[in-house]
Amino acid sequence: MAPKEPLVISNKDEMRKWSRAMRCQGKVIGLVPTMGYLHEGHLTLVREAHKHANVIAVSIYVNPGQFSPNEDLSTYPSDFDGDIRKLMSVPGGVDVVFHPHNLYDYGNDKKNSNVAIEGDKMVSCVDQGGLGHETWVRVENLQKGLCGNSRPIFFRGVATIVTKLFNIVEPDVAVFGKKDYQQWRIIQRMVRDLDFSIKIVGSEITRENDGLAMSSRNVRLSTKDRQNALSINKSLLKVKSAVEDGQVHCEKLRNLVVQCVTEAGGQIDYAEIVDQENLEKVEFINGPVVLCVAAWFGKVRLIDNMEINFKMDVRK
Amino acid sequence: MAPKEPLVISNKDEMRKWSRAMRCQGKVIGLVPTMGYLHEGHLTLVREAHKHANVIAVSIYVNPGQFSPNEDLSTYPSDFDGDIRKLMSVPGGVDVVFHPHNLYDYGNDKKNSNVAIEGDKMVSCVDQGGLGHETWVRVENLQKGLCGNSRPIFFRGVATIVTKLFNIVEPDVAVFGKKDYQQWRIIQRMVRDLDFSIKIVGSEITRENDGLAMSSRNVRLSTKDRQNALSINKSLLKVKSAVEDGQVHCEKLRNLVVQCVTEAGGQIDYAEIVDQENLEKVEFINGPVVLCVAAWFGKVRLIDNMEINFKMDVRK
Repeated sequence: MAPKEPLVISNKDEMRKWSRAMRCQGKVIGLVPTMGYLHEGHLTLVREAHKHANVIAVSIYVNPGQFSPNEDLSTYPSDFDGDIRKLMSVPGGVDVVFHPHNLYDYGNDKKNSNVAIEGDKMVSCVDQGGLGHETWVRVENLQKGLCGNSRPIFFRGVATIVTKLFNIVEPDVAVFGKKDYQQWRIIQRMVRDLDFSIKIVGSEITRENDGLAMSSRNVRLSTKDRQNALSINKSLLKVKSAVEDGQVHCEKLRNLVVQCVTEAGGQIDYAEIVDQENLEKVEFINGPVVLCVAAWFGKVRLIDNMEINFKMDVRK
Repeated sequence: MAPKEPLVISNKDEMRKWSRAMRCQGKVIGLVPTMGYLHEGHLTLVREAHKHANVIAVSIYVNPGQFSPNEDLSTYPSDFDGDIRKLMSVPGGVDVVFHPHNLYDYGNDKKNSNVAIEGDKMVSCVDQGGLGHETWVRVENLQKGLCGNSRPIFFRGVATIVTKLFNIVEPDVAVFGKKDYQQWRIIQRMVRDLDFSIKIVGSEITRENDGLAMSSRNVRLSTKDRQNALSINKSLLKVKSAVEDGQVHCEKLRNLVVQCVTEAGGQIDYAEIVDQENLEKVEFINGPVVLCVAAWFGKVRLIDNMEINFKMDVRK
């Protein structure tokens, strides 16, 4: 069978019309939200979506609402034609690619100078653009800590754009990668708290053959940094091994990561072992936790994580 | 024709199922969100909804998320049977009354002690209940000022519950009373910013024969305060008359309200003339503005407002 060419939709109303027509035909609609520049990790999300839905929409939109003005919005890579080819290579393909131009353009004649500043300079590229968008969704506890520390407006931007996409695409199922672990948990909680009728599926991390977690940002690593960045996954495996050997003291485990990544020339943003549900720090492992790491290699910030489903057996 | 008895639904999934069935039949679904204890003002909203929709849902739910622990949640009046009778009296009636028990109960086994405190004691009855709800929607600029000053968590609570109701009922049209002017503008902006596919209709203020704006809180006024509270509407009419006489200086107009209400024994919370769209204070009237008033009579806080669609004609 020839690969299926997806319908490309850029208009919100057209997107919703398609989705509503599908729903009235009894189809289950799956959404895979992406920022484009797709790699094998994204294609895994699409394959996962096929397990839960009859028709699949992939959104490709680099969301200015989750970037601070000092972050890498302008250099975020893109390759729309390549993305379409890759999506067509997945068995079953995808039905729709939703590729809007600007989801914050409300057709205002004049720019709004009333830039919403929260706290001290905590402003996204949307606020900076002055388009008058002023509604933000926050998952107040889960957005704190981990990536929330160094990217204070990030999860506000993610929760808000995902709300917008959910309201435009109206899916029944949405698939998120567990590489962005905090994001995945935030979206799950948001869906519960705001009563979206959408099942959120978490898809396991896809890695390169050498273990590096796939990311659109990987292409921006120098050859040397690309090699050094392998230390992240190596450090996770060291921790795995240490836990299997009976080490449950999180500070000790965390130090393994810091040492391994730092020795390889990386700069740790954070390395934390937290509860899988509420993402609160854990001192000793005695239940389902996740080790989350963020580190800089050159000008590129990478994240990775590993779930540890360890239950101390006191009968030993 | 016998009055139509509405279907009463308390379950979220059942509510959404009804709505989706209607949509697939091509019906336009109207929603009138209320906190119950209905009066003629609410019935006006239902009549307005009939102009825009084929089937009408009215939600009756007193939202703890918009009440501070020190506010009047526990004494908020209710009369469910009376509400149903009143809704049946409207020509065409209503199709569904959505009457959930607790929209913040997510079936957690244990209460969540992780109470989200923002700033200093800015906590709603939902946070206080410790049910673990932690996702809030804010319309950052419009929520400031006017009622936002004395009720700092109010509009966060309103925007969040309306988002929840929109996601459960999935209406095409929702009708809000312009008596809650700031709320109406906030919901309009939220719908635009979050891409809800819902038309927001503002319905004019309904008044008692003597001019008092209808409110569920009016029953809690003493006979004397009920009489004194007429000063609010009287003050609006004074301003109307002054504007017609050429007075455009907002400070002068505002003082008419303060004087009239204070002399009647009311205590002004605010009296402001603001732009109809962005709700920012205006010094001189030269375009569409709205005079918004909030005042206490005894232990009851009342609000009222009047749009002034005045355009200075420089050719005069």
